[in-house]
Amino acid sequence: MTTLSLSYLPSFRTTSFNDNDIRSMVWGYKIFGASNTMKMGRTMMYATPVTKGVNGKPAVVERTMIPTQKQFVDPFRQGIIILDGVGYRQTVVVRSYEVGPDKAVTLQSILNLLQETALNHVWMSGLLGDGFGATHGMMKNNLIWVVSRMQVQVDQYPIWGEILEIDTWVGASGKNGMRRDWEIRSHTTGIVFARATSTWVMMNQKTRRLSKMPDEVRAEISPWFINKQAIKEESVEKIDKLDDNAKYINSGLQVVKQSISLKFHDPLNIM
Amino acid sequence: MTTLSLSYLPSFRTTSFNDNDIRSMVWGYKIFGASNTMKMGRTMMYATPVTKGVNGKPAVVERTMIPTQKQFVDPFRQGIIILDGVGYRQTVVVRSYEVGPDKAVTLQSILNLLQETALNHVWMSGLLGDGFGATHGMMKNNLIWVVSRMQVQVDQYPIWGEILEIDTWVGASGKNGMRRDWEIRSHTTGIVFARATSTWVMMNQKTRRLSKMPDEVRAEISPWFINKQAIKEESVEKIDKLDDNAKYINSGLQVVKQSISLKFHDPLNIM
Repeated sequence: MTTLSLSYLPSFRTTSFNDNDIRSMVWGYKIFGASNTMKMGRTMMYATPVTKGVNGKPAVVERTMIPTQKQFVDPFRQGIIILDGVGYRQTVVVRSYEVGPDKAVTLQSILNLLQETALNHVWMSGLLGDGFGATHGMMKNNLIWVVSRMQVQVDQYPIWGEILEIDTWVGASGKNGMRRDWEIRSHTTGIVFARATSTWVMMNQKTRRLSKMPDEVRAEISPWFINKQAIKEESVEKIDKLDDNAKYINSGLQVVKQSISLKFHDPLNIM
Repeated sequence: MTTLSLSYLPSFRTTSFNDNDIRSMVWGYKIFGASNTMKMGRTMMYATPVTKGVNGKPAVVERTMIPTQKQFVDPFRQGIIILDGVGYRQTVVVRSYEVGPDKAVTLQSILNLLQETALNHVWMSGLLGDGFGATHGMMKNNLIWVVSRMQVQVDQYPIWGEILEIDTWVGASGKNGMRRDWEIRSHTTGIVFARATSTWVMMNQKTRRLSKMPDEVRAEISPWFINKQAIKEESVEKIDKLDDNAKYINSGLQVVKQSISLKFHDPLNIM
């Protein structure tokens, strides 16, 4: 097995089988560029960090193990790179706390999974800095991602226990923005449950102002841009502007703790 | 590969490799009792439901595919049966929306994962009825589970991206209750992050009263009971009874929609 795309992924070592208490999962996985066949014996695998060990022993464990090079498979998140090397697919099972009383996934849970797969896509790209989805170039320039627009079309809500495949990919949006799309399908039938598209812009974390995309950042992310679109532009429904004659008004809203993002910015200011 | 423990799990068929857009994950997995070695070629696998197909075609897809027999491995949830066949272990990666601003898992997320692994344990047992964790015998008697006591000891909070192993198992609690314990460890280092224990009793869904455990249900679940305890009894800290002299009082609390369980019972009534 080549370790080409595994430099910062956990390495796997085999250990003898113990029927009473298996140390870990029994997954095998295949790396692109690896040998054509891989044998799995009566063994199992578990992860140990590989960060330039000394005398065969692993060095200090970096807990999150963020890769600095592009990865093609993430065995723990069940993610793989698709679409000629620029897209990301993750397989997830709908969890018990992600559904409502009708056992269907809530919209909130769908949005959570969209965020999660987006971040894991960046994780796999090797571009992830320490921040939440920010690249190294963005961190250098104190920039963070801000979602300025999002559209989710749900044809059918997945239910508790259902196996989903979530595809995501990115494209250019104007001069300074990025489009990110998603498709959520049934792993079993291939039926599309939901499609989503979003526009991302950059905000300076210090000045709290939107920023142009620095050339340095464009160079990092533009190789990942493709034109594929989950939702055709024409189908975007315009939302009417609201005025004081609105039927229902909920005024005096305040930002509560839960509305503050991990980057401590107030999402209401930027929508 | 034997299909002994796969009767209601998705079956896997191989398809030819397509570099452009891989149909699905490239996991292999090993079934207990299967042949000693399993070869993975330049192929990948995807799930199709097997429910007594006609002319080689799968029959109507049951979306959740709840097993009616004991399973030993769940390749999609990354779960396996441990502890001599009665415990359950699941590997999860801490997701972006499960952490707070400090990137550490929130207690709420830990509780979510405890619920999830408990339900998946029952899922694997083949005892799961249509309800949330209720066995066939419980459903026949209109009984649902109610958690009457729970203790969680967190030594260290896992962080975003960290790989966790969550073990869970059950034991007897008095005549009519069940104890369920958990241990959450770092997959990489084996360090224990958290331990938890809980007591579960049964409530009649119609009368809203706690119920004795019917012999039928005891016969279903007692083969899974073991004495292992995640937290030693002695370490349980007593919580002082509150009276009107409490320093902080938050009265007039009302049950809101989010507090109502999937079984439409009010958790405040039964605590």
